Amino acid sequence: MFAVIMAGGKGSRFWPRSREKMPKHLLDIQGERTIIRETVDRIRPLVPPERTLIVTGRSHATELIRRLPEIPAENILIEPVGRNTAPCIGLAALHIQKRVPDAVMLVLPSDHRIGDETTFRRVLDTAGKVAAGGNALVTIGIRPTGPETGYGYIEQGDPFPAGGDGEIRRVRSIREKPPLEQAREFLRQGRFLWNSGMFVWKASTILGAIERFLPELHERLMQIREALGTEREEQVVGDIYTRLKAVSIDHGVMEKATNVVVVPGDFGWSDLGSWDALWEVSGKDENGNAVRGNFVGIDAGDCLVHSPGKLVALVGVRDLLVVETDDALLICRRGRSQDVRKVVEILEKKGLKEYL
Amino acid sequence: MFAVIMAGGKGSRFWPRSREKMPKHLLDIQGERTIIRETVDRIRPLVPPERTLIVTGRSHATELIRRLPEIPAENILIEPVGRNTAPCIGLAALHIQKRVPDAVMLVLPSDHRIGDETTFRRVLDTAGKVAAGGNALVTIGIRPTGPETGYGYIEQGDPFPAGGDGEIRRVRSIREKPPLEQAREFLRQGRFLWNSGMFVWKASTILGAIERFLPELHERLMQIREALGTEREEQVVGDIYTRLKAVSIDHGVMEKATNVVVVPGDFGWSDLGSWDALWEVSGKDENGNAVRGNFVGIDAGDCLVHSPGKLVALVGVRDLLVVETDDALLICRRGRSQDVRKVVEILEKKGLKEYL
Repeated sequence: MFAVIMAGGKGSRFWPRSREKMPKHLLDIQGERTIIRETVDRIRPLVPPERTLIVTGRSHATELIRRLPEIPAENILIEPVGRNTAPCIGLAALHIQKRVPDAVMLVLPSDHRIGDETTFRRVLDTAGKVAAGGNALVTIGIRPTGPETGYGYIEQGDPFPAGGDGEIRRVRSIREKPPLEQAREFLRQGRFLWNSGMFVWKASTILGAIERFLPELHERLMQIREALGTEREEQVVGDIYTRLKAVSIDHGVMEKATNVVVVPGDFGWSDLGSWDALWEVSGKDENGNAVRGNFVGIDAGDCLVHSPGKLVALVGVRDLLVVETDDALLICRRGRSQDVRKVVEILEKKGLKEYL
Repeated sequence: MFAVIMAGGKGSRFWPRSREKMPKHLLDIQGERTIIRETVDRIRPLVPPERTLIVTGRSHATELIRRLPEIPAENILIEPVGRNTAPCIGLAALHIQKRVPDAVMLVLPSDHRIGDETTFRRVLDTAGKVAAGGNALVTIGIRPTGPETGYGYIEQGDPFPAGGDGEIRRVRSIREKPPLEQAREFLRQGRFLWNSGMFVWKASTILGAIERFLPELHERLMQIREALGTEREEQVVGDIYTRLKAVSIDHGVMEKATNVVVVPGDFGWSDLGSWDALWEVSGKDENGNAVRGNFVGIDAGDCLVHSPGKLVALVGVRDLLVVETDDALLICRRGRSQDVRKVVEILEKKGLKEYL
C-alpha cells in the first residue's frame, strides 16, 4: 500500500500563523510537532516512508524535504498550480502506477487531527483490504457527533459485499455541507456519516473512474504519463496544469460513481480547518479557556489564546479567538473563524504582502 | 504664581503600558508627547519652568529630570512613599512658601486631558486672581456632559464675592463618586460640577487649612520645614513620610473647609484614568474603532487598539480594549477597565515581577 498526502493548501483560515511561506501543514498549532509531521508519523506503521508520497506546491517543496528527511525527495510531487483534489490525486496515481502497476493507494489530507491513532490505522487497514480485493472506490466515513454544518455527509446504502453483515456499506449519496436543519435531519435518520476526505483505492481504479467521469482530465494525465521520468517532465506538467480545470474528487468522481463504498470510523477525527476547530479539540481550563503560555483571566471564558512567549490578560471577555505572531494580532469572535480568510483577502487587495 | 504637578501615581489601570518604571505620566498614549510633557507645556504660558514644581516618587525622579530638562532639578520634589494628595500638597506648599512667602500655587494632577488649552489657561488665570485676592481655597469645577459615576461632584452655592453676578460660586458641598441614579439627579438639579482635582490657593492659605483640619499632618510638615535646605532634609522627609497617614486633600480639607470657592470651566476635560476613558476621548473611524497603526476590521466596532508596529485584525468583535506591549497583551471588555487594576494585583500575588 502507498500513501498520498495532499499538502497543497495554504490554510489561510489559520492566519496570522499561516503565511505564503508557512502553510498550515507546517504549523505546530496543536503541540510540539508540525501537522504534516504528525500525519506522516501516524501512518508510518502502515506505510513506510519510501512508499509515502506528498503532493505540494512549488514554494513549499524545499521546506517539506528539509523537514521530512526520511521521505525520499522523489516522493515529493510538485503541482505548479493548485487545481483542487482530482488532478492532485490523478498525478499521484500515475506515479504510483508507474512503480507498482496494481498498487493500492491511501489518500489523506495533510491536516487532520486524529485522537485515536490505533483505531485510525485499523480502519485504514480494513479499507485497504476492501480496495485491494476488487474495484471499489473506498471512502472513510466518520460517525457524526453533532449536526456539523462545516462537513460534507455520506449516505450509507446496502451492505458490502452484498449480503454481508459488517459495517462496510455501499454509498447511496454524497452530500455537500448542509444547512443546520438538514444536518439535524441527517443525524436523526442515522445512516449518514461525515465525509472525511480520506480515500483508499487501486491507482488503476481511480484512473479508470477519472477516465469515465472526467475524460478531459484523463486525457491530460495521459500526456503527463508519457513525460514522467523524462527531462520534459517538469515542463509538460507545468504546461498541462495551467490549462486544467480545478475540480474536487468528490464533485468530479465520487458523487457520480456507483462503485463507492464507505468504511465507518470512530477515532476522534476533526479536519482542524480553523481556529474554531482548534478550540473545540484543545484542552481547556475550568473556564473553557484553551491557552498556551502565561495567562491571567478575570471573568473570562471559552477563549482560545495563542500568543507564544507573551503574558495575556483577558478581562470580562468570552468566546474570543486570540492569535498573535511577531508582526500581527488576530482577535476573532468564536464561530466567526471562517471569516479569517476575508482578512487575508483584504490584505491581498491592500498589497500588504509582508503579512501574507 | 507657582504650579505644582502631582506625578505620584503609577496608573496601574493603564497596564500593560504602565509599569513600575513607566508610570502613566511618562506614557504617550494620546499622541507624540508624554502626558507629563503635555501638562508642563500646557501651563507654560501661565507659569514658567523655574516656578513649576513636580512631586513624584523616588523611582521616577531621574526619568522626569531627564525628560523635562527645562525644569530645574531642585523643582522635582521626592516623596519617599505615596500618602495621597494632602501630604503631597503640604510638602509643595512648604517649598513654595520658603521661596515666596505669599505665593499663589496652582495644583494640577499630571495626567489630565484638556481639549481647549486657551480656555483652560483663562480659567486658571481667573482662579489665580481669586486666590491672590483673599484667603479662598479655589477649585476648578467642570460642567458635566453626562451622569458620570467615575468623578466626584461639587455643589455650587451663593455667588462669590457675595452679591456678585459672575460664574464664581461658594461651594456648598463636595460629593464623592455617586451611583448612577444620584449622578442623574445632580445633572437634573443643574448646580453640580465635576470635581477636577485642580486647585488654586495661596501656600499660606492651604497650610492654614491643613493646620485646622489635619493638625497631625501640619505638625509633621512643620518638622519638615525646619529641615528644608539642610543636609538632614532627605532623612527627615523619609522618616516623617513613612509615619504619615494617607489622606486626600478632598476628604481631609475641602469637604470640611468653609472658604471653598469654585470656578467653573468648560475646556474638554477628562481625567484619562483608564483605557475606557482613552477610548472616549480618542478619534474614531466610521465604526467607532480608535486605532493606532495597521488595522483590518471585519464586522468590528467600538474598539480601542493600541498595538504599536503590529497589524491588528478584528473579526466579529465589539467593545474591546486591546493593548499590546513587547511582553504582554491585554484584552478587556469596554466598561471593565477599572478591573485592569486587578490584573496587576494578581501579577503581584503570583510574583510575576517582570510584568509589573
